[in-house]
Amino acid sequence: MTRSDARRNRTRVLSAAAAVFAAQGVGASTEEVARAAGVGVGTVFRHFPTKEALLLAVYEERLDELAGEARSLAAADDPGAAFEDFFRTVVASSGTKLAVVDALAAVGVDVRASGQQHGLGATLHGLLTRAQQAGRIRADVGPADIMTLLAGTSRAVQFAPTDDVRRRAVEVVLSGLRISS
Amino acid sequence: MTRSDARRNRTRVLSAAAAVFAAQGVGASTEEVARAAGVGVGTVFRHFPTKEALLLAVYEERLDELAGEARSLAAADDPGAAFEDFFRTVVASSGTKLAVVDALAAVGVDVRASGQQHGLGATLHGLLTRAQQAGRIRADVGPADIMTLLAGTSRAVQFAPTDDVRRRAVEVVLSGLRISS
Repeated sequence: MTRSDARRNRTRVLSAAAAVFAAQGVGASTEEVARAAGVGVGTVFRHFPTKEALLLAVYEERLDELAGEARSLAAADDPGAAFEDFFRTVVASSGTKLAVVDALAAVGVDVRASGQQHGLGATLHGLLTRAQQAGRIRADVGPADIMTLLAGTSRAVQFAPTDDVRRRAVEVVLSGLRISS
Repeated sequence: MTRSDARRNRTRVLSAAAAVFAAQGVGASTEEVARAAGVGVGTVFRHFPTKEALLLAVYEERLDELAGEARSLAAADDPGAAFEDFFRTVVASSGTKLAVVDALAAVGVDVRASGQQHGLGATLHGLLTRAQQAGRIRADVGPADIMTLLAGTSRAVQFAPTDDVRRRAVEVVLSGLRISS
């Protein structure tokens, strides 16, 4: 197997794992992940010797994606919409992320510092500052407020009984952050 | 001991228990509660044979207080302020309440239905409707939205690193619910 085959397999396993964990919870077995990826279970174990290593890789991958998305939004024409898009994306991805964090915490792996390593805090700060300078987001909130509201909104979305309530909860919080023009 | 003495002791134990659990967490011992109430530990056990019974009574008492507060706000002159006051009160009391709920859940007692028995849902609905009819709260939200936002804001308040961030998180959510006049 060439090195690029191996890389392709790793990527395939990772995206299958993310989908399987999102659909069935982080309790889903490595066998199910292998089946979804269309590879043998040996291939999964070669790349990720333990379930924990697989969970951690899924989590890191998600943070990479978020950081990439934040970077591409940082240059967007509409700084207000860019900030709101990122807020919505983080909330939408929070369910699986929280489940993975909890599962890792249960085996003693603390991933809270990972967000910083991916520069997510700094990128969020940039998106917020641009949106505030454009007069779209209230000036009295800082990164700690946004992190706090992201945690709260993620919890609200988890609690909401229907998709409509879920959508409205996010809209209420964003509307509270917005400066209406 | 007369019946009113006994009632007085029960009340005293309950409010001491609420204060002790709020300050030290629900792991605080019955002895500490007795000390704070200025009664013997036997008095505590006479009224609340188990720690679980004491936790449940503290929880029910808190719901009674919230329901009483909601009823008194229901006739307030300013329906917008009344709704917001109640939202703030529920969020502020959520920390201890969640800890009690979790501690009871851990021993298999499910108190989720209690809120309904205390008529909290109906009272909240009344406060919301009046505030909406007065044009103070957006018309497109219902009781399920408010419950969802209460859960989310309670989580945000728990997550917030400082009192300032805590206060602003509540204000952002309320401002998102408000119709600015």
